[in-house]
Amino acid sequence: MRVLGVDPGLTRCGVGVVEGSPGRPCTLVGVEVVGTDPQEELPRRLLRLDARLTELIARHRPDSVAVERVFSQHNVRTVMGTAQAGAVAVLVAARAGLPVELYTPSEVKAAVTGSGTADKAQVTTMVTRLLRLPERPRPADAADALALAICHVWRGGTRDRLAAAVRAARNGGAG
Amino acid sequence: MRVLGVDPGLTRCGVGVVEGSPGRPCTLVGVEVVGTDPQEELPRRLLRLDARLTELIARHRPDSVAVERVFSQHNVRTVMGTAQAGAVAVLVAARAGLPVELYTPSEVKAAVTGSGTADKAQVTTMVTRLLRLPERPRPADAADALALAICHVWRGGTRDRLAAAVRAARNGGAG
Repeated sequence: MRVLGVDPGLTRCGVGVVEGSPGRPCTLVGVEVVGTDPQEELPRRLLRLDARLTELIARHRPDSVAVERVFSQHNVRTVMGTAQAGAVAVLVAARAGLPVELYTPSEVKAAVTGSGTADKAQVTTMVTRLLRLPERPRPADAADALALAICHVWRGGTRDRLAAAVRAARNGGAG
Repeated sequence: MRVLGVDPGLTRCGVGVVEGSPGRPCTLVGVEVVGTDPQEELPRRLLRLDARLTELIARHRPDSVAVERVFSQHNVRTVMGTAQAGAVAVLVAARAGLPVELYTPSEVKAAVTGSGTADKAQVTTMVTRLLRLPERPRPADAADALALAICHVWRGGTRDRLAAAVRAARNGGAG
């Protein structure tokens, strides 16, 4: 199962691709931070993000896409850019016909560190360890995107196994 | 000059198209509220908005697009949907190669009523009057989208006239 994770942001949008299956280690496929110039106008910035995410999906051919769910933050200006970039990521994935899952930051933190209140450094440490990377991914947006992708592999896998168990139970009942 | 105005919203997105030039009355070309089902998942809702806005731009062939600039509101849940829908509108227009202008709600109110603090009813009254409509456009999202389009015709026209005046002055100086 190959998952492309997106940590949305207008100035820096983290994109991380991992491959794996539940209960087994994930491997890194690719990671990148898509940047847009804050001096540019919004239409051009969204267009650049749209184009680059479309390219990355075409290149990596993920089975599904995981995007961070945006919530209220202190800085309203930041949250607007995050919501706009997130909308572009969700739209690009949906246009490519891929399933999209949204995860809250605390779901992602809990998945990779065991704690929903872990700090950024802890998330980066665990991403580095789980993917057996030679060095810590930088910036934090890159590590967050990889954490999202790992979270989805594990969660998606759990759902798949549940679905498989349900199917097996049904088949068993009918046989 | 034909302008397509968008009052972004995830559940109800107002779209209004008007034609006109500065200092002359605008005429209505079309108005519609694109709705998406709050029970549906976000990817499907953004996809529907993307598809419908793309259709409307192809049908009405505006010269430019005006979108309401999203600011902080009381309800964080609402502002997220507004930011996401606004991002889709800006992206669709940019992909079509059209110039996009963003206006704050108070700029739009000031343009059509003379006051940046006018209420929704007053905006609807003025839109009805300015476009000489037989009845008030409903819901408010439709009237707001038309107000945005009217605002842009007038503002864009003002800029055009300024640019023309600058060109004329330069040519005069060179002749």
